[in-house]
Order: sequence, then structure tokens, then C-alpha cells
Amino acid sequence: MTFVLATAFGTYYLGTLNPRERLPTSTITLEDTPKHQHKTDASTVQAAWVDFAQIVGKENASTNEDDLKSHAGSSWSSYDTPEHVKPFVVVYPKSTEEVSRIMKVCHRRKIPVTAYSGGTSLEGHFVPEQGGVCIDFSRMDQILALHQEDLDVVVQPAVGWEDLNEYLAKDNLFFPPDPGPGARIGGMVGTGCSGTNAYRYGTMREWVTSLTVVLADGTIIKTRQRPRKSSAGYDLTRLFIGSEGTLGLVTEATLKVTVKPTSTSVAVATFPSLHAAGDCVSKVVGSGIQVAGVELLDSVQMRIINDSGTTSRKWKEAATLFFKFTGTQAGIKEQIGIVQSLAKKSSSKSFEFAKNDDEAAELWSARKEALWSCISAKRSPEDRVWTTDVAVPISKLPDIIQQTRDDVDKTGLLAGMVGHVGDGNFHAIILFSEAEKPLAEELVHNMVVRAVEMEGTVTGEHGVGLVKRDYLPHELGQETVDAMRTIKQAFDPQCLLNCNKIVRMEVPAKGEIKPW
Amino acid sequence: MTFVLATAFGTYYLGTLNPRERLPTSTITLEDTPKHQHKTDASTVQAAWVDFAQIVGKENASTNEDDLKSHAGSSWSSYDTPEHVKPFVVVYPKSTEEVSRIMKVCHRRKIPVTAYSGGTSLEGHFVPEQGGVCIDFSRMDQILALHQEDLDVVVQPAVGWEDLNEYLAKDNLFFPPDPGPGARIGGMVGTGCSGTNAYRYGTMREWVTSLTVVLADGTIIKTRQRPRKSSAGYDLTRLFIGSEGTLGLVTEATLKVTVKPTSTSVAVATFPSLHAAGDCVSKVVGSGIQVAGVELLDSVQMRIINDSGTTSRKWKEAATLFFKFTGTQAGIKEQIGIVQSLAKKSSSKSFEFAKNDDEAAELWSARKEALWSCISAKRSPEDRVWTTDVAVPISKLPDIIQQTRDDVDKTGLLAGMVGHVGDGNFHAIILFSEAEKPLAEELVHNMVVRAVEMEGTVTGEHGVGLVKRDYLPHELGQETVDAMRTIKQAFDPQCLLNCNKIVRMEVPAKGEIKPW
Repeated sequence: MTFVLATAFGTYYLGTLNPRERLPTSTITLEDTPKHQHKTDASTVQAAWVDFAQIVGKENASTNEDDLKSHAGSSWSSYDTPEHVKPFVVVYPKSTEEVSRIMKVCHRRKIPVTAYSGGTSLEGHFVPEQGGVCIDFSRMDQILALHQEDLDVVVQPAVGWEDLNEYLAKDNLFFPPDPGPGARIGGMVGTGCSGTNAYRYGTMREWVTSLTVVLADGTIIKTRQRPRKSSAGYDLTRLFIGSEGTLGLVTEATLKVTVKPTSTSVAVATFPSLHAAGDCVSKVVGSGIQVAGVELLDSVQMRIINDSGTTSRKWKEAATLFFKFTGTQAGIKEQIGIVQSLAKKSSSKSFEFAKNDDEAAELWSARKEALWSCISAKRSPEDRVWTTDVAVPISKLPDIIQQTRDDVDKTGLLAGMVGHVGDGNFHAIILFSEAEKPLAEELVHNMVVRAVEMEGTVTGEHGVGLVKRDYLPHELGQETVDAMRTIKQAFDPQCLLNCNKIVRMEVPAKGEIKPW
Repeated sequence: MTFVLATAFGTYYLGTLNPRERLPTSTITLEDTPKHQHKTDASTVQAAWVDFAQIVGKENASTNEDDLKSHAGSSWSSYDTPEHVKPFVVVYPKSTEEVSRIMKVCHRRKIPVTAYSGGTSLEGHFVPEQGGVCIDFSRMDQILALHQEDLDVVVQPAVGWEDLNEYLAKDNLFFPPDPGPGARIGGMVGTGCSGTNAYRYGTMREWVTSLTVVLADGTIIKTRQRPRKSSAGYDLTRLFIGSEGTLGLVTEATLKVTVKPTSTSVAVATFPSLHAAGDCVSKVVGSGIQVAGVELLDSVQMRIINDSGTTSRKWKEAATLFFKFTGTQAGIKEQIGIVQSLAKKSSSKSFEFAKNDDEAAELWSARKEALWSCISAKRSPEDRVWTTDVAVPISKLPDIIQQTRDDVDKTGLLAGMVGHVGDGNFHAIILFSEAEKPLAEELVHNMVVRAVEMEGTVTGEHGVGLVKRDYLPHELGQETVDAMRTIKQAFDPQCLLNCNKIVRMEVPAKGEIKPW
């Protein structure tokens, strides 16, 4: 069909258009997502087990009930795994090649797959909702090469960040990302984790040079060689960081490392309010001096620490800032002086700084014990702790913490607030019984809604998993979530890898998504 | 079909498999890429022009021959645009909404599109090889919002980094990425640029919080709100950074900014060899002190600067390191002392440091004039300058610079070497006549091959464009390039956006790809 248009400046042929032609789009809606058909029937499962046993040895393809259950969830997760949800087998590969062969089996047999790393994640990342295979990377725990002069290290995914730092310390090096204890590189990549060092050093995204990844059909790719920077093509490395095992399985990582700072010290300042503490942080950031970390604990969190007795001293029960300083001794002394005077201008009630390493460790101990002190506040073994996180533009952090604090106080629940205040990121650590669960859920929901309304994000560092996926359209808009779905569909067209996490790939049942 | 397998530990059904079923894969080979059909015939072009004139006004849909030619290439690019290659129209939109409407026209009419930002790119990024429409963003040049307390700024794509820094300086803020003069935010996102500040501050990837992007079908997405960190879903922001206008068009960016350092200073040290200079850098990095920048110029580059007379003083013609320091005055003094003693241990022949801002500017002037001094060394107006770039693991930088120097000297061409030595990244700035072009091409090719063999990358900061796309399989492996193609195909199934750049989407003619 040819159109003709007469206009003020001439007559034009409108080209040949077929109005019925359905042109391919850039994004995929959930409704347009092709249905996938997983197979987890008995004969598929049995046949797959035989395949896996051939690949990894039958001693590494466990169907032991305890193994299956321990890979289905955890007591510290905010997601309650239903009783019947578990993998049919836990497979323990030893090499990239074995992972590729396992994925080829799953691809051919249409079996869903969940990856398992340190098991420390909080939002249901490794819950095998679809059944299928769990791939546990614990046998791939080797540090493969340290290139001291290039400041990088090549590791397998089950290397823990604490063990890695112990290894690196011998050469005066360290790896900054510091998520929860027990986390391993594979899961840290998956979650795009960070921690208290992120303010100074950035998150996991800044510390990975290259990843070896096994894709859903068993294809092995390596995202880069070892240059510290590159503009050669799409940033696949960063695409896999934070993809929570939905796009591929990390089997090797080249990580940047850095030289340990010459000296480190700590200072602790207390304030009459969260806003006074926030004001101090603004002043410190605005001064242009580069502190190595700044953490905020609220007065209730400080009381919980005192009550727990997990530190060797008692603390003022006030909004408290913990500063970390690095550099030369002279440089640190200068920084502490400046921060102290800025804290005073923000009405600090106290300011203590460490005169040696022991004092620094003691001052930092309250920050370190924040989570454990909340756990030790359990009234009965059945009580649970919900550690949730959001992030907002940094100026809005005191507001959202204060509003969340007020919200918590109305419920009568016990909850500490811990903020990576330099990043605008904070955690509420909420203690609750089964009966109080609806209250905790409402608190978390309100916190997420507030963060989104303040132009923030529903998770700063814990990830999406199963718990936060339905918040994404509210944070990002439906089209942006559809763009994420486009990537998932392209890399994993059978939806084998942690299917239905981060972005839904299956239309939910009516009423499954809670109202915003 | 059902298989049964009898094994030592039992009899198993092998599940139901259809061996003829072709299962969808995770990556797309070039051979399997669906053919796209662009339309640039006269009636399509005329009809599209009418559409564009309705959207942006006919004064902003230029078919002026000079406009078309100036948007087809540049004299500083390493890619020679063939005479016949040009867009049929240059469209100047004013808003995200207009860009979306333009893309909807192109999507419906199957017209290829090239984005044009500052025009400073070097590898043929904006050459409209496929013809079609050029979208020039120059009317979208506004700074939309500065959030001083949150340390971010929202800008349109045609804001230049130099203008932005002038604007930010009023509030004592700055934006670190410092590519070539004239570069604008849209292109800087596209290239994933960096510069001399990357060693201390990171590249463009570390300084973008969020992007508003128009996709190939006109869909508008915003990758994030304004939190400084987030783990909420795939990192679309970083996927678009470095995608060179092949995945979407950036129409707005939220950038992180930082506080200007209290003080800045510069020191310059000369060495008997490139390796001695490299040894000094290793020592400085290994000491754990955080210098703000470290740049390496080789002896020939220093001679070119002397010969050009572009700086107010003469320099030793030796391998030279330029250090930048930031911090408090006391901190800088301490750093300079440490670096001076480490330089001495690496056999430095001289060490000068600035005692005030004027001296700092004078010392840094040689680094700043490196490129211009090479341009001023032209023997005739027809001579050209090829500025190419690779990056390797940092310990290998002295080797590759020395080998490239030896290679250059054999050809008799004039070329300076400039290294962002802390990142393992360096540039060769090669002067050549039309007759010498094959020699220059061979030098660049050898440099790229060496970088790949040293586990490096074919481009550290200039990007791929048309010039380096066939090197990617050598650097990354064919499967990794296929994974990149998967992303391109998913977001832009009609291959409208800068089609065939970064990754080929059309099978090349026989002989088009040079042998490795």
C-alpha cells in the first residue's frame, strides 16, 4: 500500500507501509512472554540424575533429604520456603566444564536450575520454587592465581571474601566488598553486594574485572581478559553482577584488589537526633576529605547492643556515627581533627577517637555487632529477624530512617536501624514472632514505598529475589522492567535459571501480588 | 521417544526426549542472525522527512548538504568515511518525547539511525554506513537539576563535560571523567569514556546513576531513580554505557558529582627508560598512597612537545611521569615526599614538584599538550594523526609501550606514546601521510595483537566503532561476541540503531575482514 500526502511544501509519497505487519519490539511484556515448559516428572528426574552422576560422580549428586532441605531456604531469609519446595538433587561440580555439561543436560531436558553459593542471601534468592536441580559450587573453592603487580586475583566462586582477605593480607593486599559473614564470591557477584567499605571503595560492581559464566544452554563465555579498564563492547561483566543467578552461572572471577591502607583508625560521635547526625555527614562529605567509611546506628540500635552485652563496653543510647579513616598516620590525625570540628558544628554530644588499633577495634565493635545483638534479643527461639534494606538520595536518609523509626515504635516491635549513610542506604533489623509477622511485613512495605517516593530504590545491596520483585515496576516503571525481561528471555529462553526471580516470567495467580 | 538405561545402580527411564527438537539457545551466531531489511528508498525518505518535520519543525530536519557531510565523519577519526556515505537527513530533537516519536517513525518505516553527540569520537562511531537518519542532540543541552546535597546532577545529552564542570565549580563540585575536549555526556555514555582522572575516580561507568533511554521502537525507559547505589534488578545503566548508540539513545542522564579536592598539586619525574618509570609506578601503587593521577609520556612524545613550542618551557626528552596529587596541603606535601623517594629508588633522573597553582599548571601543560603537539608536527595539511588506544594488565604496560616504540621506529614514522599508566592504558599518536597509511595500519594492528596476547583489551577508552569490531572475537572469544549479539538482537530486532557496529549483524563480504 502506498500513501501520498499533499502538504504546503510539496507532495510526498508516504513510503510503502503494511499497516497489518506486526513489527518486532524492543521490550517484552509479561503477557507476551512465551510460555516455558519445565519438566520435573519422575522419569526426567531419574534420567537427569544418571547424567549428573556420570558428570560429577554419584557421590556429588546428592538426593539426601537433609541436603535437599538445607538448599531450599534459611532461617535468616525474609522468605519462608513452603514445606514442599526443594530441589530433587543437589549437584556439586568441580570445574567450569562440569557446570557446562550439567547445564547442557538441563537445557536438553528442560529442567529448572538454582545456583547455591554461601547461602547467606536474605530475599529468597536460592529458593528452588520451580523444583529442579540445585548446583552447589562449594567444591569450586580455589584461589587460582594472584597477580600481585597487576593488582588482581583469579578465584573460583566458592571462595569466601573473608578467606580471600586472609590470603591477600600476606601480600599487604585486600579486597574491599564486605557483605555478611560467610558470603562467597559467586553469590556476591549474583547479588551485586556491598557493605561498609562501599562509601570509599564502591560496590562489587567496581571490583570485578572479568567473569567466566556458563549460560542456560551450557555455552561458556568469559566476559573479559585482565585489563583494569576496557571499552571493548557491551559490559557483560556488569550485566551478570546483580543478575542473581537468572542469566548465567559464575564459575570463575577475576577480581581487582588494592593495597591495604598504611594505617586505619576509627572515631565515634553521638548526636541529639538522626537529623543532626545526617547534618554532620553532609558537612564531612562537603568538606572534600575522603573518610574510608561512615555508618549510622540509631538510639534503639545502640540500646539493643548495650542490652546484648556483645561488646566489651557500654554506649550512649543516641544517634551515633562511626567513622573509619585510612591513610598515613599524619593524614588520619588531620582528618580526625576536621571531622571532630564538623561534628561539633552539628551539635555532637560526644566524640571519641581511637589512639591505637585495639581502641579502633573496640570502637568499631558496636557497628560490627549490630545484627548479632538484634538476634540475641530474641524473646524465644521461634522469634525471627527480618533484615531489610532500601537506599535513597543521601540527603533524604535521615528522613526515611526517622519515619521508619516512628512507624516501628507505633507497632511496639523491636527494631534497630543501621545506615551506610554515605551511600544513602540503610537496614531495618526487625524482631518478630509468627503472630507479629503481618506487622513486620507492613513495616517493610511502608519502608519500600517511602524509598520509592523519595526517588530511591527498593534494595540498595540485598537484591530482589522473590521478596521484592513486584516492587520493581513501582520503582522503575513497567517499560524498564519489560526491558529487563527482554534480557532474561534472550539469554534464557526456556527460563531454566532461577526462573521467575528479579522479573516475573510467569503470569502470577490472581491476588498473588499485594496492592501497592 | 523414551530411553531406558540399565546401570550398576539400577534401571532408569531416560525421560522423554525428542532428538529432532531444536531448542532455543542463549547466544546468536552471525550466521543465525535474522536478516534485517532497512528502507532508504526515495519514497520512504520523503515520507519520513514529512514525519520528522511534523515532530521537530522543518527547520530542525536538515537536508543541507554541508550538514549531511559534517555528520558523516571527521578529520580526526581513524575511520575514512567513503564519499557516498551520509545520512539523508539530520534531525534536531528538543525532548525525550520528540526522540521517541522520531524512533517510532524509523521503527515503522525500517529506517536506520545514527546518533550524533559531540562528534569527537575516534573509531567511526557516528559514521552512517547504512545511510538513514542522523539524530543530532545539540538542542538538548540543558542542565536540568543540581541536587547539591545528594551529589548528583541531571543533564541532557548535549551538555559538554567542560561546561558542566564550569557550572559545578560555583558550588565547589566537579564531575571527574575527562575525555577529549568537546565531548558531550551522550557520547561519553556511548563510549564509556575515561581520561586522566580514571585512575583515582574511575571511568564513566562509575559516575552515572541513571539514564533515560529511547529504544529502537520508541519505548522510553529510565534505568533508575536517584539512589547512589542499588541492587534492584539488572544493571541497565551500565549496559547502555559503552553501547555506542547501538542499543538505545540517551536523552537524559543523572550523574554523580563529587566535592572538589581542597588542594591539588603536580610533580614530574624523568627516568632512564620506560621500564624504570613503570617500576616507579609499581612502587607508588604498592605503597598504598592514593595519588590522584599518574601519566606516562615517552621520550619521543617529550621531544615532539619541545619541538611544537606549545608549552612555555622545555622538557627533558626522557620517559616522564606526571603525578597529580589532591588532598589537604599537609597531605599533599607528605605524598610528594614519599613519591620522590620512591622515584629515586627507581633511578629517576629528575624530580620537580609545583610550589603553587601556576607551577602546577605549567608542569601539567606537557601532558595536556601531548595530542596537540603531535598535530602541530604535521609536515603538510594532508598529514593525518591516528590516536589509538589499548589496555593491558598494569605490569605489562612498559613492555607493550617499548615494543610499540621499537615497532614505530622501524617504520620511520613519528609517533608519541601517552599512557594512563595507573590503568594499564596507553595511546599511540601516529602521524602519517596517505602514502604511509599502510604502515600506520600495521602499527595499530600489531599494537592490538600485542595487547590481546598480554591478556589486555583492544580498546581501553576509545571504543570499538567500525575500526575495532573484528578484533573482538580475538580478545573475547566468539561465544562472548555471540552473547553481545544476543543483546543487540533482543533490543533492536530490526537493527536500526548504529547497525553493524561493535558487533557485526550482517555477514561481511569475502576479504572484508583482515587476517589476524
